[in-house]
Amino acid sequence: MSSHAYRAAGVHRDAAAEAKELIGQHARSTFTPGVLGDIGGFGSLFQVQGFKDPVLVSHTDGVGTKLRVGALMGQFDTLGEDLVHHCVNDILTTGAKPLFFLDYIGMGSLVPERVEALVKGMARACRRIDCALVGGETAEMPGVYQGDDLDVVGFVVGAVERGDILDGHTVQDGDALIGLPSSGLHTNGFSLVRRIFEVDDNPDVLFQEFPELGTTLGEALMAPHRCYYPSLAPLLRYIKAMAHITGGGFIDNVPRVFPGRFRARFNLGSWKPPGLFRLIQDRGQVDRDEMYRVFNMGIGMVLVAGVEEATSIQAALPDALIIGQIEERGDGDAVVFAA
Amino acid sequence: MSSHAYRAAGVHRDAAAEAKELIGQHARSTFTPGVLGDIGGFGSLFQVQGFKDPVLVSHTDGVGTKLRVGALMGQFDTLGEDLVHHCVNDILTTGAKPLFFLDYIGMGSLVPERVEALVKGMARACRRIDCALVGGETAEMPGVYQGDDLDVVGFVVGAVERGDILDGHTVQDGDALIGLPSSGLHTNGFSLVRRIFEVDDNPDVLFQEFPELGTTLGEALMAPHRCYYPSLAPLLRYIKAMAHITGGGFIDNVPRVFPGRFRARFNLGSWKPPGLFRLIQDRGQVDRDEMYRVFNMGIGMVLVAGVEEATSIQAALPDALIIGQIEERGDGDAVVFAA
Repeated sequence: MSSHAYRAAGVHRDAAAEAKELIGQHARSTFTPGVLGDIGGFGSLFQVQGFKDPVLVSHTDGVGTKLRVGALMGQFDTLGEDLVHHCVNDILTTGAKPLFFLDYIGMGSLVPERVEALVKGMARACRRIDCALVGGETAEMPGVYQGDDLDVVGFVVGAVERGDILDGHTVQDGDALIGLPSSGLHTNGFSLVRRIFEVDDNPDVLFQEFPELGTTLGEALMAPHRCYYPSLAPLLRYIKAMAHITGGGFIDNVPRVFPGRFRARFNLGSWKPPGLFRLIQDRGQVDRDEMYRVFNMGIGMVLVAGVEEATSIQAALPDALIIGQIEERGDGDAVVFAA
Repeated sequence: MSSHAYRAAGVHRDAAAEAKELIGQHARSTFTPGVLGDIGGFGSLFQVQGFKDPVLVSHTDGVGTKLRVGALMGQFDTLGEDLVHHCVNDILTTGAKPLFFLDYIGMGSLVPERVEALVKGMARACRRIDCALVGGETAEMPGVYQGDDLDVVGFVVGAVERGDILDGHTVQDGDALIGLPSSGLHTNGFSLVRRIFEVDDNPDVLFQEFPELGTTLGEALMAPHRCYYPSLAPLLRYIKAMAHITGGGFIDNVPRVFPGRFRARFNLGSWKPPGLFRLIQDRGQVDRDEMYRVFNMGIGMVLVAGVEEATSIQAALPDALIIGQIEERGDGDAVVFAA
């Protein structure tokens, strides 16, 4: 190997080997009985156990430009948690239990410590919910990514009994809309926030305290995406449908989970968006509808349940709020807001 | 939606909606009976059918900096094929049949035509092997990707009967090494090639004809990654182990698939690397071992089989070549080359 031609072309095999070793340790700490074999093969082997008639549910997602904020703050491990939680919440909306997770990290120049921090965060998140981190790819791609730019992508596979799939077909007029608080922006709306606070030109703003927040802006923005699986897994039998409030906010996400003849009416007086959202709205002069289309406004998951079941959910989850109801849609919008 | 704040922040929802519509059509063309539901939900539902004791096999990968070459040539659809074929070949090494595929496309600025071309190529590749393209994510991330930079990531899930997993445990001294021709570089070694030909500074070189190639450099580089599934699926019973020659070439990939007490001896006289590899080696003054560590050198998949089974494989696949054999390793390297 005397020529080192590949290194001169910007690809660092030693760094890749170091990163691989670190990743392997974290990944193995998440292994569940379904995992066959080890990390590092061409394919990751998993045997689904404990289901009678399982349907696999898969999803892929990233963490959006929250990555930029994390990079400016030198904080990568919580982005790994964000990635797992975002993907797991998405498949949870069908009633699925997460089984295994894979990640892809693409970057211009491989920094093993960053890769390790990301994977460490993913492994921590996976362990908490018995989801196995079974594989991944770390790709150093000079020219595709500039400098130390990077992107991180997650891929989750879960399973649900065929008869238990949540598909909203039992939703009816009068059902309750239940909101579960978010922990912050989760992973959506960061491009807008970065522009409003001119974060790229003035990263110091991330370290500034704001009275509305009680913390620095950066700390508020980087709060990890809440994982709803531990709270909701025991309550799935009470739930008819579930919308994860991600990109597209309330307006794009909620109507996806029930038949088109219904609409969701949200009572805006039923919860108060946390200070971070008000700060963003004021600073950016963003109009109200745009806020509810881009951000979660303090509610990260919306459940649809019968009125009695809603009471059971609230009894089990004290932070669950009744925030609206299902109505016949008529000719209007699929989501309406009542003051 | 009067403020258009998100658009001003560099996120184009109309382009995203257009891309989503185009993607949906291509994806639906790949649906197999296992797919439940449609594109566009929070999770993609799939029911495994036709297996008695299935083990799931998953893998994630990208196409490396072949992306840069494709972008310079304005050619994206074959990159979609590359992505599917790379992932499918990887899980094929365990004996797995591909079931479903998801993709992630991250970019600085959403160009719907590029996204469509990529997904069209993926769908074409998926249809040929009855693998369903069940979902994906298109993420416009200004600031994470510069300008119109983009990355594309694939995730595949397949299945293999538990008793049929290829894990190399039956490999023994004297087994044959069988090589299947590659269609070109596949998706590895592009960072080195781009440097050797100074592709980024001088993209015109891609449109130049070289006598060693009989085509332009760009055409030779962009040849789609060969998918080995159709050739090898009917022959899996003859195969003991299989190595996909990707990043790390022969030296890193072949020893991953058999027990450590053996080594692979390749007879370099048994095949002639195509002109593209000789051109790269000459132009870049790359030494031989480096070539066999970075590139596939004309062999994209290496099989291990008993001598009799090797005959059956050659009878079924006329382009399969005996290129070496398994030996006791002793104290030496796990891969040796004989002139």
